[in-house]
Amino acid sequence: MALRTPEQYKQSLRDGRAVFFRGEKVNDVTTHPVIGIAVEHACIDYRMTEEAKYRDLAVVKDGAGEYSRYFHLPRNGEDLRKRSELIAASTREGATLVVLIKEIGSDALLALHLIAERMAAAGKPEYRERVHNYHRYCRDNDLAVAVAQTDVKGDRSLAPTAQDHPDYYVRVVEERPDGVVVRGAKVHTSVSTNTNEIIVLPTRAMRAEDKPYAIAFALPINTPGLKLIASPHGSSKKDSFEHPISARHKMMETLTVFEDVFVPKDRIFLNGEVDFAGLLALTFVRYHRFTAVSYKLPLLELLAGAGYAIAEANGIVRAAHVRDKLTHLAAYHTIVRGLIEHAAATCTIEEGGLAVPNTLITNVAKYHFAHNYHHAVQIVQELAGGLLVTAPEAEALTSEATRGYVMKYLGGAKGFDAEKRLRLLNLVGDLTASDFGGYQEVLAVHAEGGFEAEKLQAYREYDCKTVTSYARKLAGV
Amino acid sequence: MALRTPEQYKQSLRDGRAVFFRGEKVNDVTTHPVIGIAVEHACIDYRMTEEAKYRDLAVVKDGAGEYSRYFHLPRNGEDLRKRSELIAASTREGATLVVLIKEIGSDALLALHLIAERMAAAGKPEYRERVHNYHRYCRDNDLAVAVAQTDVKGDRSLAPTAQDHPDYYVRVVEERPDGVVVRGAKVHTSVSTNTNEIIVLPTRAMRAEDKPYAIAFALPINTPGLKLIASPHGSSKKDSFEHPISARHKMMETLTVFEDVFVPKDRIFLNGEVDFAGLLALTFVRYHRFTAVSYKLPLLELLAGAGYAIAEANGIVRAAHVRDKLTHLAAYHTIVRGLIEHAAATCTIEEGGLAVPNTLITNVAKYHFAHNYHHAVQIVQELAGGLLVTAPEAEALTSEATRGYVMKYLGGAKGFDAEKRLRLLNLVGDLTASDFGGYQEVLAVHAEGGFEAEKLQAYREYDCKTVTSYARKLAGV
Amino acid sequence: MALRTPEQYKQSLRDGRAVFFRGEKVNDVTTHPVIGIAVEHACIDYRMTEEAKYRDLAVVKDGAGEYSRYFHLPRNGEDLRKRSELIAASTREGATLVVLIKEIGSDALLALHLIAERMAAAGKPEYRERVHNYHRYCRDNDLAVAVAQTDVKGDRSLAPTAQDHPDYYVRVVEERPDGVVVRGAKVHTSVSTNTNEIIVLPTRAMRAEDKPYAIAFALPINTPGLKLIASPHGSSKKDSFEHPISARHKMMETLTVFEDVFVPKDRIFLNGEVDFAGLLALTFVRYHRFTAVSYKLPLLELLAGAGYAIAEANGIVRAAHVRDKLTHLAAYHTIVRGLIEHAAATCTIEEGGLAVPNTLITNVAKYHFAHNYHHAVQIVQELAGGLLVTAPEAEALTSEATRGYVMKYLGGAKGFDAEKRLRLLNLVGDLTASDFGGYQEVLAVHAEGGFEAEKLQAYREYDCKTVTSYARKLAGV
Amino acid sequence: MALRTPEQYKQSLRDGRAVFFRGEKVNDVTTHPVIGIAVEHACIDYRMTEEAKYRDLAVVKDGAGEYSRYFHLPRNGEDLRKRSELIAASTREGATLVVLIKEIGSDALLALHLIAERMAAAGKPEYRERVHNYHRYCRDNDLAVAVAQTDVKGDRSLAPTAQDHPDYYVRVVEERPDGVVVRGAKVHTSVSTNTNEIIVLPTRAMRAEDKPYAIAFALPINTPGLKLIASPHGSSKKDSFEHPISARHKMMETLTVFEDVFVPKDRIFLNGEVDFAGLLALTFVRYHRFTAVSYKLPLLELLAGAGYAIAEANGIVRAAHVRDKLTHLAAYHTIVRGLIEHAAATCTIEEGGLAVPNTLITNVAKYHFAHNYHHAVQIVQELAGGLLVTAPEAEALTSEATRGYVMKYLGGAKGFDAEKRLRLLNLVGDLTASDFGGYQEVLAVHAEGGFEAEKLQAYREYDCKTVTSYARKLAGV
Repeated sequence: MALRTPEQYKQSLRDGRAVFFRGEKVNDVTTHPVIGIAVEHACIDYRMTEEAKYRDLAVVKDGAGEYSRYFHLPRNGEDLRKRSELIAASTREGATLVVLIKEIGSDALLALHLIAERMAAAGKPEYRERVHNYHRYCRDNDLAVAVAQTDVKGDRSLAPTAQDHPDYYVRVVEERPDGVVVRGAKVHTSVSTNTNEIIVLPTRAMRAEDKPYAIAFALPINTPGLKLIASPHGSSKKDSFEHPISARHKMMETLTVFEDVFVPKDRIFLNGEVDFAGLLALTFVRYHRFTAVSYKLPLLELLAGAGYAIAEANGIVRAAHVRDKLTHLAAYHTIVRGLIEHAAATCTIEEGGLAVPNTLITNVAKYHFAHNYHHAVQIVQELAGGLLVTAPEAEALTSEATRGYVMKYLGGAKGFDAEKRLRLLNLVGDLTASDFGGYQEVLAVHAEGGFEAEKLQAYREYDCKTVTSYARKLAGV
Repeated sequence: MALRTPEQYKQSLRDGRAVFFRGEKVNDVTTHPVIGIAVEHACIDYRMTEEAKYRDLAVVKDGAGEYSRYFHLPRNGEDLRKRSELIAASTREGATLVVLIKEIGSDALLALHLIAERMAAAGKPEYRERVHNYHRYCRDNDLAVAVAQTDVKGDRSLAPTAQDHPDYYVRVVEERPDGVVVRGAKVHTSVSTNTNEIIVLPTRAMRAEDKPYAIAFALPINTPGLKLIASPHGSSKKDSFEHPISARHKMMETLTVFEDVFVPKDRIFLNGEVDFAGLLALTFVRYHRFTAVSYKLPLLELLAGAGYAIAEANGIVRAAHVRDKLTHLAAYHTIVRGLIEHAAATCTIEEGGLAVPNTLITNVAKYHFAHNYHHAVQIVQELAGGLLVTAPEAEALTSEATRGYVMKYLGGAKGFDAEKRLRLLNLVGDLTASDFGGYQEVLAVHAEGGFEAEKLQAYREYDCKTVTSYARKLAGV
Repeated sequence: MALRTPEQYKQSLRDGRAVFFRGEKVNDVTTHPVIGIAVEHACIDYRMTEEAKYRDLAVVKDGAGEYSRYFHLPRNGEDLRKRSELIAASTREGATLVVLIKEIGSDALLALHLIAERMAAAGKPEYRERVHNYHRYCRDNDLAVAVAQTDVKGDRSLAPTAQDHPDYYVRVVEERPDGVVVRGAKVHTSVSTNTNEIIVLPTRAMRAEDKPYAIAFALPINTPGLKLIASPHGSSKKDSFEHPISARHKMMETLTVFEDVFVPKDRIFLNGEVDFAGLLALTFVRYHRFTAVSYKLPLLELLAGAGYAIAEANGIVRAAHVRDKLTHLAAYHTIVRGLIEHAAATCTIEEGGLAVPNTLITNVAKYHFAHNYHHAVQIVQELAGGLLVTAPEAEALTSEATRGYVMKYLGGAKGFDAEKRLRLLNLVGDLTASDFGGYQEVLAVHAEGGFEAEKLQAYREYDCKTVTSYARKLAGV
Repeated sequence: MALRTPEQYKQSLRDGRAVFFRGEKVNDVTTHPVIGIAVEHACIDYRMTEEAKYRDLAVVKDGAGEYSRYFHLPRNGEDLRKRSELIAASTREGATLVVLIKEIGSDALLALHLIAERMAAAGKPEYRERVHNYHRYCRDNDLAVAVAQTDVKGDRSLAPTAQDHPDYYVRVVEERPDGVVVRGAKVHTSVSTNTNEIIVLPTRAMRAEDKPYAIAFALPINTPGLKLIASPHGSSKKDSFEHPISARHKMMETLTVFEDVFVPKDRIFLNGEVDFAGLLALTFVRYHRFTAVSYKLPLLELLAGAGYAIAEANGIVRAAHVRDKLTHLAAYHTIVRGLIEHAAATCTIEEGGLAVPNTLITNVAKYHFAHNYHHAVQIVQELAGGLLVTAPEAEALTSEATRGYVMKYLGGAKGFDAEKRLRLLNLVGDLTASDFGGYQEVLAVHAEGGFEAEKLQAYREYDCKTVTSYARKLAGV
């Protein structure tokens, strides 16, 4: 059963999981008015393996049989490039919203492979087999896998042990012969309402005294004690004329609570090895930022494309300042795309023969994306005009009382009647001036680690030594 | 009756006006679930004249009796400064959303005063008395007055007479002995659903052949043939915990249709004087951008203040990069405020003794505000963190099933329990990552004229000649 | 003798001072090929008091007789505005290079007045009279006065007492009944080669253990032990066709060494009062940044003016992207000028009735200037074209062998023959692409305190409390 | 003789060429005090083929024997990558100043190859053999080759035939059986004082009426009638302590005059084919911007390296704002390098099997470099401090009178005595605050086509259609 159908996927989510929405436990996520949209969105992944045009990209066939490319271990730049292409293609299907139900989980699996090899080399061989087994389990059952990494953290300026209570970071509260019991909570856990599994990783480097906090593991979503408190951000009822993207596409995030949850031994991938906690966190991010930049590409395509389309509809596409703005959007897209393709092409082959995308370039690409996103939004809003927030919407076009006026007066350039123009305006409005637009902005600066994190990692990866030697040589010192 | 109560104001809106919302005619705007919020918001203006702390600012007492300061004709910089202060104060009461029901109308009245003087000097004395009378009428009845300026324009690269149909710009279709009949439509008409009057101005300079389009006038909102098609942007049902600003504050915009509307003579302020059409448009903007920058100040205060408050709640306020970001917000606010105060102080006294804010500085202030707004939003979102869009909301805090987890895990720095922190997050979220946030972004770049318009006017006002002479002198040419 | 002639000023510099240039002691600074240019530049100050068109601005007449406005104690915003206008006017005469021989000294005198009052209030009355006497002495003898503030600092991350040797900050090495002996060195001391006096101020806040470093005083430049080691930056021989500014205008900076220099009691203005050291440093800067922004105005005028003039000469002034660039330069100038005028108008009246420019606005103005300078340079270089660095220069226009070609081929738009165009190009080149251009760039980001200092002071002065309260109120916390 | 020695190269320049410097004809460029420095700099190219560590990179060995890689026709991405690497390596040897004596000439040769193929396909086969022969001639004689492209242009807003005189663009004034006679002038011709040959290309697209202006050809530098009027920018006498780069490295530019110069038939590569003039201009630029970005890499390395080195010397390398600035420099370098490597890897194979770098990415890389250069300069100047322009220089360190003070007081962090620190400061000063720094700034925005040209070409190359389709699909229009 290495490839599941959308229906099988949906069926698998009816498993008694403890998901809460607006304070109430959700009986069936697949039929919930909000989470149900997220489930349908996630089905994109399972549908693509069935579609002829995506099959070669979405499915790998090798000794292990046919399975989702996400679970394929990349061995070279070409593998990474295809992985990136698949992420972009599914996000494009998702109307710029990433699907993520396998992307993020496989990022974590790849990181666990690398760290398990390193721990084995350091005299801790037991984790390697567990990781391999778990990887095969996910792959062969075509599972959807979330990742919980960011601890709630309390006062961010304090270490785990210095907080008001000891549970601001997920920790082991009991060691048992057959496993451990964990307590704590993670935030920003994406897609967890509708995956089968969740992988839990440490959020940062730990010191010797933080031993109970150096813990990584995986669990089925319906594990007792695991509570998923979903955010209702962006969940107001939406019309698909007014919100062409967000009425149909949604991703859920949860506050993920571990209320004394038991983790069996074979699902533990790190336990007390404080030296590897930070490394695991960073290694996950090495893959995950590559995923992130890959899934941002359709968003950048849409900013450029919608900018052009609406400028055309408004009759201003030939104005000098408009061309300047469109060029800016084109350059923004080109830089990010060029860099991420280059990051794949210049990957390194590391422990166990795994290909890792060029970390410096990946981080710089992510930073460039994040730093310039709001400005790109500004440009697209400028091109679209104030009608973005002042235009009449769906019913004004269907009502007899108003349709005539709207059609007569809101037409644009030749070939763009009022309806076409409003559809383009609504696309830009949904993308940039709605709660979904706000979601995209916040994701730009926070998802997969914020600015400061990306800058720090770029700084560390940059070959400062060589360029400083060059400076010293020219200075004669 | 120079000062009305909020109740009198509300009563005056039940006058049979033709307002359409989502395709349906609205019976009573004051009780409409969406427009009613806008009406309550507008009441701020009438409430302030009753409050002791605002009375001196909001009310002028002179030979004409006691009346709203908005209708006071400014004679010097101090008058302008107080006008600016009143606009800022009422917007502050409006939680960063401008009230506008008198601001914009009086901007238009001031422009009409100036142009009427100029037309009188050019041999067209009849408009002056009409303007004076109309001004007194609005003042003495304490009316709320909207302004419709932006024509729908069709293909923006074409002139009024070159469009698909001749009605893309409002025009006179019939001259009668007692007035004119007008046809056409305007967009982005703010507050028109809930004012008493509407002033209509040309949108741009006109050429000789555009004579029918050179028309300015005023009408009661319930004039037959006047149709207001309201935009439902941002009208989803909102909880005040999750949307502390936009659940309580709202401004309406309409597509304003003139379906062969009769305008009596004494309400016509320009009719065919093509040479004065562009001048009237620009003169209105000279006052209106001064209003605009004044009402943006509370928004800039809130960006800086919310940035600080949430950084504090997150325990990061002392980090170097955070201080850097807060300084950026402080400088942004300081520059815009300093410039607008300076624009008042360096006003010019023009026709009829009216004080006009320094146009160059006003435009530069507006441009600086507009150009940097999205970046400021980005900073505040960075300071707030991803919880902006991933946090549980209202019911998760009240539900027994989830409240314990939320309170335990979402606490922040000392003194900030989960509820306080979520309230601050929701404030930032409402301000920057919601449909209201999108509304603010779009307003920043489009309201009161877009970027390119501000740049053009700044360029024209700048004393290029003096600086070029200086350059030539130093170059010796 | 409250107003000296340029000749008297020059004569006063032949006093045996120990100035070193390229390792050699300079006999007479007024005739030195490089420093002599700086002396002539400084004469602008003495010449302006003689010129009818500047006399009212440059000279104050009151109970103390006629004297240079620089020595006038400002009592209100108008005094500050005139001070600012005088600084700008003399810098304009100096072709964008500040004169500074009284500006900086009087900034220090004003700060000393304020601190002496504060120290008197704190039980140290002796300094007040010394400051008053010294102020009168400078004023009544129309002296040129330099200020040495920045210590050499050694390792900038270490305190004065933690350095490799104790002399990295100027300190008292011996207390005598009639004065003190000081040792150490200051950098970046502007105009010291050609002033009569030098005032020495502490560079930063001091701790209790730094007592010997808490020292402020004044000395004649020719005091034994005072050594001025001048920087030769920008001192290559220059033709005034190729370098229309810097061939005629120059400012000197020195490494200023105090080799066990005796300071008599009446010239000591702070000695061991560690609590006032930082305050004095900051108070000086409050005035000095106001001076700084004032003297930057002609530079901003020239950037805008030269940008326009060269665009015109190149025949591109009507291109859309050119107008955009010119508008940017105009806005940059307007913001900085508007803010500094506003800083004068919103001054505070402090100890002894002295007017101090609005510190928040001054710092923000300085920061805005500094942050955007390089970008403005880029724009002007773009407008000018590559000929800035590839054009033939002076002799190619006079030589018979080449003049014909140059005149034929380097002409520009109508009215701009090759010579005119080259003159404009050379102006831009001297201003932006020469060692003088580099000097202006470095001054922009470092003079009168760098970026980080301005940001820090702006952050401190900003009313964070009020805006944070506003945010909290709106959030309901 | 496919590889020449530096000595052979220098000898070849003593050929009677008509080079003018400051109005005088230069007898021997190799011994001229200014041009001689440029000649020595150019020798880097000939020296590298002799050095073991560069031989594999600098020399190609194939059926045509051993010859300089610059003359190798690239067939794939790897060829382009090596070409880029060689350009960067020689520029690195040149202390960030490009050598260019073969780079630019071979860019032109490659473009001529492509256009000759296209013209052959369009029925004009005669040019192909001429290009091939000329290419072999340059390669087999290891020649240095300049390119003159930019016409003087007169009023830039007018076409060639609409100018004050017809010679503002180079044109054919006489057709002869054995060749043509050309007249006109080009500007910004780099390295022409010290190459053997010069290739002349049209500067822009031509219309039917511009036929005489559609001309491309090559000539030996000493051809009668060819006059090179050199720019003396940056030619003041320099000490290598104070100017560690520019005292030793120099590139010359000329106003290149064609005073009725005869061009023999086999040296003519375009003559009247107006349709190919613009294409040739653009094709040259497709290679030349790739060259440009390649040679900018050492400059970006030095900005990052010098920034780090001087921050270390100043003892501030660990400050948060410093790390932020260094990260910015690192990201800037990484983006430009990543993109240009990617442009090589994603080349297209065009006419005659020639590999052309990805034009979109090359232009975006160039644009990103150019747009951000001044800001990077600002950062490095901030890190270095004001001593950049106020420090004593060479002689102050050797003179007995001053050396002691300088050594005592200008030391920095541990390990950086005054001399070391001054050397680093001088490096930064030479790079950013000298006439050489100005030269680099102007080159950044103008060389190889300015901003607007790069933006235009990027806009044209960008796949606007695909992204607009995507937008339309999502909008449902």
